[in-house]
Amino acid sequence: MPSFAASPRHPLFRPLLALAAALLAPALATAAEPSARLVKEATELRDRALAEGNAWQHAWSLTTEVGPRPAGSAADRAAVAWALANLAELGFDDIRPQPVEVTAWERGTAEVRITAPFPQPLVATALGRSVGTPEAGIEAPVVRFESLAELEAAKPEQVRGRIVFIDERMERARDGSGYGPAVQKRSRGPSVAAERGAVALVIRSVGTSNDRVAHTGGLRYAEGIPRIPAFAVSNPDADLIGGQFASGEEVRLYLYSSARMLGPARSANIIADIRGAEKPDEIVIMGAHLDSWDLGTGAQDNATGVAILMETARFIAMMPGRPARTVRLVLYANEERGLDGSRTYTAAAMESEARHVVGIEADGGAGVIYRFDSGVAEHAFPVIEAMQGVLEPLGIEAGDNSAIGGADLSTLRERGMPVLSLRHDATEYFDLHHTANDTLATVDPEALKQAVAAYAAVVWIAANVEGDFGEFPKN
Amino acid sequence: MPSFAASPRHPLFRPLLALAAALLAPALATAAEPSARLVKEATELRDRALAEGNAWQHAWSLTTEVGPRPAGSAADRAAVAWALANLAELGFDDIRPQPVEVTAWERGTAEVRITAPFPQPLVATALGRSVGTPEAGIEAPVVRFESLAELEAAKPEQVRGRIVFIDERMERARDGSGYGPAVQKRSRGPSVAAERGAVALVIRSVGTSNDRVAHTGGLRYAEGIPRIPAFAVSNPDADLIGGQFASGEEVRLYLYSSARMLGPARSANIIADIRGAEKPDEIVIMGAHLDSWDLGTGAQDNATGVAILMETARFIAMMPGRPARTVRLVLYANEERGLDGSRTYTAAAMESEARHVVGIEADGGAGVIYRFDSGVAEHAFPVIEAMQGVLEPLGIEAGDNSAIGGADLSTLRERGMPVLSLRHDATEYFDLHHTANDTLATVDPEALKQAVAAYAAVVWIAANVEGDFGEFPKN
Repeated sequence: MPSFAASPRHPLFRPLLALAAALLAPALATAAEPSARLVKEATELRDRALAEGNAWQHAWSLTTEVGPRPAGSAADRAAVAWALANLAELGFDDIRPQPVEVTAWERGTAEVRITAPFPQPLVATALGRSVGTPEAGIEAPVVRFESLAELEAAKPEQVRGRIVFIDERMERARDGSGYGPAVQKRSRGPSVAAERGAVALVIRSVGTSNDRVAHTGGLRYAEGIPRIPAFAVSNPDADLIGGQFASGEEVRLYLYSSARMLGPARSANIIADIRGAEKPDEIVIMGAHLDSWDLGTGAQDNATGVAILMETARFIAMMPGRPARTVRLVLYANEERGLDGSRTYTAAAMESEARHVVGIEADGGAGVIYRFDSGVAEHAFPVIEAMQGVLEPLGIEAGDNSAIGGADLSTLRERGMPVLSLRHDATEYFDLHHTANDTLATVDPEALKQAVAAYAAVVWIAANVEGDFGEFPKN
Repeated sequence: MPSFAASPRHPLFRPLLALAAALLAPALATAAEPSARLVKEATELRDRALAEGNAWQHAWSLTTEVGPRPAGSAADRAAVAWALANLAELGFDDIRPQPVEVTAWERGTAEVRITAPFPQPLVATALGRSVGTPEAGIEAPVVRFESLAELEAAKPEQVRGRIVFIDERMERARDGSGYGPAVQKRSRGPSVAAERGAVALVIRSVGTSNDRVAHTGGLRYAEGIPRIPAFAVSNPDADLIGGQFASGEEVRLYLYSSARMLGPARSANIIADIRGAEKPDEIVIMGAHLDSWDLGTGAQDNATGVAILMETARFIAMMPGRPARTVRLVLYANEERGLDGSRTYTAAAMESEARHVVGIEADGGAGVIYRFDSGVAEHAFPVIEAMQGVLEPLGIEAGDNSAIGGADLSTLRERGMPVLSLRHDATEYFDLHHTANDTLATVDPEALKQAVAAYAAVVWIAANVEGDFGEFPKN
């Protein structure tokens, strides 16, 4: 999924810089307004995609005929085969798998119960990459913290021998900005707790729903610190644990998990090109991860991202001529548990002569796109303005230049590649993100049509415009 | 829960009959308009409950300190103890448990997978009272039916040796009227399928949510027909099964369940009286079931019903004087798996000299009350009109005389007891009904205040009005 950092708006920023860019434009060999003809083509492409796009069908196929596909599993390999078969029908000039070594992990089963003061079973799930408990489970008193920060400030004697419960709640927001702060307790929490002597960690799910479904997601064990089992409980279950403390009595949990790391396994990125007619070594990259968590069917995370970009490519391949630059779709392996595909792709890309001119990632769910952000050099602002003009009738507002792109493109961005970002409305996304509820039943086919129209228009302009997007801006 | 039969509205019916009743009133010894003083008392009681009611606290306590409480379980016994302790603080004149023998059932664990054509795991749960599968599970081809009716019309050779999948979808409605038709496949489906030679039954959940949580609920095995294991899958999981058939290939499922009936167990109804000052043997009965399904915490089904009536009783007990009639709260045992408490209570009531003048049940979830229905003799319509006048400012519309009350009161209604019915908005109730999502997180405390205000006003008038409600109308 993309980085959901809050993007500060600078109302004066864009017009001023656009003006500066316009004034400077004649002096910059690499900048240019897109031609009227290019804008017209993008507009027509947008309208065709909006009318005829059927990304939903690709998402249906992936979720129904493959289903959940955690990296390294048999279903992950089925997903790679599915992609190779289904991309073959979309009009690409070249499709190839790129082998990726991933580390497989098995969720196993989990059982979590309150044992005191008022026993009752809870709904919980292991965090991704977590170790399991001993076979007999762990039964221990619970110490509750309002936040990861409060845990970090705790003395070891408060924590030692206990189960740490971090009760921090994620905020709902259209831009998903609640995720970044809330996810820290999931990724860093286990080692912060273990460093202070905790025997296990339980977190209130990183999610906004009141459903009794726990949100999984990856943790990161720090080097040199004991690895303790870590679980997420749903929001209502966190309420139940918190409620036990009202009694003033000691609160105890029983935890069991058979989660475990498996060995290395083979997976693959899928690289599919619509070859550029004029500058085939200049690449406009579209990225989406093919793997998913195992609890749902990986519909919004990320079958719809895959489907949107497949359909975008299909419409681009249907254009009367090839774009000037190569349009490349990369379906990445193992985003969810380590960005293995991203690292493999970028390492190989660094060896090649091709240049990644700009990138766009689809991994923000299936909400309507409401805003367009960029992370490009200033000289490219006129191009961004032209793109925005084509997006505006889709109900997409102008954003700013603070985009950092998605997780899979981060390894290219760190090497200077600029990014474009179409923001999906994430108001309800974190109700289902990383849960069993991430199924196609939550997806509105009409929203996917709007998304394909937007991606197609933006990518077509990027692949044909004179001049480039420079380097990702350094702050 | 109450019967959610569609109640046909007769716009002309009520005014005409009210007129008839008014004309006939002088001739009927048992009918009377409530006095202005009684209406004023009820209005003040309504306003006090609306301002000060805290049913949420009772529901919090029951769901947090007891949690799920399936009949016959240790938690069911804890719920009985909880009720005895908590009712003691509400001002009743008499509180006593009434032993009830129930049959306990254990859900065990369930595993359901698509094995062909496209393997993936599903989220499923056993139906209540279902037998389990053999230890090795059942793997068999699936035959899909659009409805129970279609299954009933099927030839045995279509069904024999197969797993029957009934894919019928429940309709969402404010009055919950989708439940009655949809529930047939759950209660009768297992024996209909078994009679035709099916090895197991899987149904699309009787529920309206797109969450990946299955709705449990009781089945009824018919006598003399083999008992086959029966499961519900969530709506998205039903979509996944249905989607497999698009391939044209044979669809196969693997089913495992360790569900089993346990032996008889002890439970109890709790009977709590506010004794009538003038006619202690005339009873206005308020009923709610104390047991729950095991997947959620039984919040809307039925901790809130219990809580609403507890709080209603508390406000009535706070009145300056006792009501003319006895106001009785009955917390029923084992509504969900057989109405054992209802039958036990009514059998004993038939032996007693007390008369159940009218009954009202709270088992329709925690939605706002939007309508008031009755099932009373025509001579009582002026009383219903007066009650409606007090309810109107709470946003409750006038209904009709088609109410049949809830499941626990059905055994008294069948013996002629008239009923009153405050209808909770059930638009969203069947998203969570009988699922893990039935937790307190779904409950709006403000809606509970409105409910207590409504129940208190209605019950106060019923317990004090001159004249009675006659017999439940025969159609």
